[in-house]
Amino acid sequence: MDMNTTQHTSHQYNRELDDARSKLMTMGGLVETQVTSAIKALLERDSELGEKVAYSDYEINSMEVAIDEQCAEIIARRQPAASDLRLLITIIKVITDLERIGDEAEKVGRYAVETTESVTSGELHQSLRHLGDHVKTMLHDTLDALARLDVKQAMQVVTNDQQVDAEFEAISRQLITRMLEDPRNIKDSLNVTWCARSLERIGDHCKNICEYVIYLVKGKDVRHTNLDKMREEIFGSNG
Amino acid sequence: MDMNTTQHTSHQYNRELDDARSKLMTMGGLVETQVTSAIKALLERDSELGEKVAYSDYEINSMEVAIDEQCAEIIARRQPAASDLRLLITIIKVITDLERIGDEAEKVGRYAVETTESVTSGELHQSLRHLGDHVKTMLHDTLDALARLDVKQAMQVVTNDQQVDAEFEAISRQLITRMLEDPRNIKDSLNVTWCARSLERIGDHCKNICEYVIYLVKGKDVRHTNLDKMREEIFGSNG
Repeated sequence: MDMNTTQHTSHQYNRELDDARSKLMTMGGLVETQVTSAIKALLERDSELGEKVAYSDYEINSMEVAIDEQCAEIIARRQPAASDLRLLITIIKVITDLERIGDEAEKVGRYAVETTESVTSGELHQSLRHLGDHVKTMLHDTLDALARLDVKQAMQVVTNDQQVDAEFEAISRQLITRMLEDPRNIKDSLNVTWCARSLERIGDHCKNICEYVIYLVKGKDVRHTNLDKMREEIFGSNG
Repeated sequence: MDMNTTQHTSHQYNRELDDARSKLMTMGGLVETQVTSAIKALLERDSELGEKVAYSDYEINSMEVAIDEQCAEIIARRQPAASDLRLLITIIKVITDLERIGDEAEKVGRYAVETTESVTSGELHQSLRHLGDHVKTMLHDTLDALARLDVKQAMQVVTNDQQVDAEFEAISRQLITRMLEDPRNIKDSLNVTWCARSLERIGDHCKNICEYVIYLVKGKDVRHTNLDKMREEIFGSNG
């Protein structure tokens, strides 16, 4: 099953659904660019890029509003069958998380500009780079799972989120040590903590989106169930 | 306009809509209790209460799933008219924010348990109490605006969120000073910072919910527009 399998008698209706899906993926691409730029701005102390990220959220926001309206309109006019309806409701939910990923990227951009001291090298920089890479991969895989409605990949992302949480905790500990060593680091370290927290939140939103994908495909609500139970539901008891 | 004005030929359909609305408000009440308890646990260093909040999120989560399913089913079976459809989509969106408010309360409860040093008095305690009171009022007003679909009240909440953000910034500065004064405060102050951040996030979610209420009633998308523009749209250019 992918996003194109369902056949409809009305070509126009098909085009409307395709258009909503394609807008969703465009929005996802924009969000991905924002996240990549925000992480780059943070790691390379590129304040010009940070500034750009911090003030270009509006495009994502207006896409959210447009897609929302479009989906509601299709539901109202077309009275879609259950499977299409589930797709449209999923899109409505997914764009909320995409928009909030954009918000977090914006925050990282803003903090990247404010952070005066360099974190361009050393252990902390490595940990941040690692977390950043991890989150970028998660987002990429999330958008991929969404485009192909790939439950296994979605499940992988949900599992990966625990690692991101652990990496965030490790960075928090590093930052506390850094603050203890030299109190002049406190303000700066807090800025980096906020960035790490935003990256961790992006991971959370990816997880949310992937749970919606699983829900859409499997028709079971896997949100809020624990991982083992979820794995069992998706891959069977030996999965 | 309130949640009961729309008349339907089918009594059964009416009952279904009423039931979804009433479940929404029940979920809102549960979330409110969680938030109140979390703030109490933090301010009074009541770790037993904190523990309780940190581990009773499941009830809210399962309500989210149930309401989601119920709304989707009503849309699928009843093919509601535009206004009912907007209501149902709004409910689907609102419960996501309610659930995330529950998550933030859970975090505050968890940090309240972890925070070993007392913040039960002094300037920081006052600021936290102030922020907590503010957020509780915001949530209460949000649920009220939601129950009565009261646009003016919703607008008030959206405006109040800026104050909550400012209070959070003030607490952040107090905590930095506290850390600078005595590095032994760092770990503890960070815990309090996370709590303040969670409270600020609860304010953000209230704002989101109120924007959905305004959208539902006014049929205009006021999300992501600036406050002045929003005020103008709702109260007219002299509002």
